[in-house]
Amino acid sequence: MQKPPVNSLNLDLLVALRDTLVKLEKEKCKGMILTSESPSVFSAGLDIMEMYRPDHNRARKFWTTLQDTWIKLYSSPYPTVAAINGHSPAGGCLLALSCEYRVMVGPKFTIGLNETQLGIVAPFWFQDCMRNAIGERQAELALTLGKMFSVDEALKVGLIDEIAKDKADAISKAEDFLDEQSGLPALARSTVKVAFREATLNRLLKNREADTKMFLDFISMPKVQQALEMYMQTLKKK
Amino acid sequence: MQKPPVNSLNLDLLVALRDTLVKLEKEKCKGMILTSESPSVFSAGLDIMEMYRPDHNRARKFWTTLQDTWIKLYSSPYPTVAAINGHSPAGGCLLALSCEYRVMVGPKFTIGLNETQLGIVAPFWFQDCMRNAIGERQAELALTLGKMFSVDEALKVGLIDEIAKDKADAISKAEDFLDEQSGLPALARSTVKVAFREATLNRLLKNREADTKMFLDFISMPKVQQALEMYMQTLKKK
Amino acid sequence: MQKPPVNSLNLDLLVALRDTLVKLEKEKCKGMILTSESPSVFSAGLDIMEMYRPDHNRARKFWTTLQDTWIKLYSSPYPTVAAINGHSPAGGCLLALSCEYRVMVGPKFTIGLNETQLGIVAPFWFQDCMRNAIGERQAELALTLGKMFSVDEALKVGLIDEIAKDKADAISKAEDFLDEQSGLPALARSTVKVAFREATLNRLLKNREADTKMFLDFISMPKVQQALEMYMQTLKKK
Repeated sequence: MQKPPVNSLNLDLLVALRDTLVKLEKEKCKGMILTSESPSVFSAGLDIMEMYRPDHNRARKFWTTLQDTWIKLYSSPYPTVAAINGHSPAGGCLLALSCEYRVMVGPKFTIGLNETQLGIVAPFWFQDCMRNAIGERQAELALTLGKMFSVDEALKVGLIDEIAKDKADAISKAEDFLDEQSGLPALARSTVKVAFREATLNRLLKNREADTKMFLDFISMPKVQQALEMYMQTLKKK
Repeated sequence: MQKPPVNSLNLDLLVALRDTLVKLEKEKCKGMILTSESPSVFSAGLDIMEMYRPDHNRARKFWTTLQDTWIKLYSSPYPTVAAINGHSPAGGCLLALSCEYRVMVGPKFTIGLNETQLGIVAPFWFQDCMRNAIGERQAELALTLGKMFSVDEALKVGLIDEIAKDKADAISKAEDFLDEQSGLPALARSTVKVAFREATLNRLLKNREADTKMFLDFISMPKVQQALEMYMQTLKKK
Repeated sequence: MQKPPVNSLNLDLLVALRDTLVKLEKEKCKGMILTSESPSVFSAGLDIMEMYRPDHNRARKFWTTLQDTWIKLYSSPYPTVAAINGHSPAGGCLLALSCEYRVMVGPKFTIGLNETQLGIVAPFWFQDCMRNAIGERQAELALTLGKMFSVDEALKVGLIDEIAKDKADAISKAEDFLDEQSGLPALARSTVKVAFREATLNRLLKNREADTKMFLDFISMPKVQQALEMYMQTLKKK
């Protein structure tokens, strides 16, 4: 991802991600490493500019493209690794959680689904991804608090799989994971992967429209627009 | 809980607990710590006097009040902590498991769903609470055995979250947990909590009457009454 | 299991296992230890000779007997322990996973569901058993890779419960587990066990015929027969 400064997931970046994922699948990709060009942020998550004073049609397209991107990434037949070389809150954490393996650069970056701290609720499929990674108990604790994990905490709870010294080391460890997978019979491997992810995928596939409506209703609330306005003024002062 | 000597959960204590939980919810409580006035027992669990030579109507009221108490505690919008300052078997363990966080005084107390050891079966929603806390594998192992965990074992398996030196330390650690939650947007926090607990809650809500009938049938069995009688004679000798 | 050289699960061994399990249940067995007469292999898993140039009727009987064996073992009312005194791939791992407790002789043996490495897909009930033992995250990682765990890795991830020095030590530790269970009220114990295993059992019970058909279709594919032929030639050279 190379959308300066912080890889905010706006409609353009999501379309680019989704199109890349579709292309990789068609081209029988052998493996993918998801990382960031930024020196300090993996992805800052959903771009709130897409939610502020929204145009209905664009907002709907934004959300369905986010769903499409996740569906493609989460169910990809080829192996996927996140080389998390910077902070990874909310939607950034979702992207990392949707890969098969997570290597994170230590020690100063943080990762987590912190929506609760912002007064919003992580969609159920974000919740499912966290639950699948760290288990029911730790996921409930993390999401009620909107906890951002340090790299050490993330490793301990199973939110990441390995710690790297820097980006080069993260890429190298990610390549080791892909090398381990590369000798495997591809069809058996991808069939097992999808078997494990099927229930979680189907939950969104069966509730896509309701999930989209919930997002559109949410950003239509005057209270939410006020909160976004205040939040952006805080950012400007920084 | 302050029903000497061991906070046995009889109809009176359950009614008091349920009414308190209803009141706290109405009064927009910011957080609750559940603890015991007893120096050695958090709660001894369900009062077997409610099961011995039962009056049908009272027994039904006893069980449905237990269900109501659990539903209110497990789904409370405000954060809940158990400061477990004594032994916590069976129904006592259920109360602790239904809070969001568990601090337990070490080293000599024990906690667990030990129903199997008494020849009875923990209801499915007790099982669900244990599974949500410590995972499928450890929950099956614990419940088939009716295992009472030492404080160290409980921490290791994830049945409790922290160990405290004494009651004051447990309360202090419980307050730290509540402080961490207190700055959070309340609606987002409680929405996430209920999203995580919904499936477990609905399983009881959809099977309340069957669950009640199972309890009433169980205590109507002559074998069960004989076992209760023998058990009470053992207690008297102590 | 004492079918030299490696306890391959062919129709004869499966019939013997299933009949023994049925008999143990009828005779109100107090506990069972599953182990191997081989000094280096617990069980090598399904016998590929049952899949090579198959007779349709025998192949169907082979698969349904495997299902029956698993159903009986997984839902046995009496406690079960695997004393894993040798390598335990694929179907051998399934047998171990279906017991209530696993003691494994270290340090040189390995255990895992390695089907993916052979280009095949572990049936969904094999996947469920692994997920129940080590959780969603680790099970997905293990099965996409077809990972064989060393004894230390298996202990760390929860795939086994204890390490033993040798077979005698494994049997002794298995007996300790059974001793711990032996004083328990048998009906309560088995009711809790089946309550925990019900969802997993029902998933196969409701899909038995589809599961059998999938196996029969799979071994009917020319590609699969070619792969089996090549695999057997490799074995002959050894």
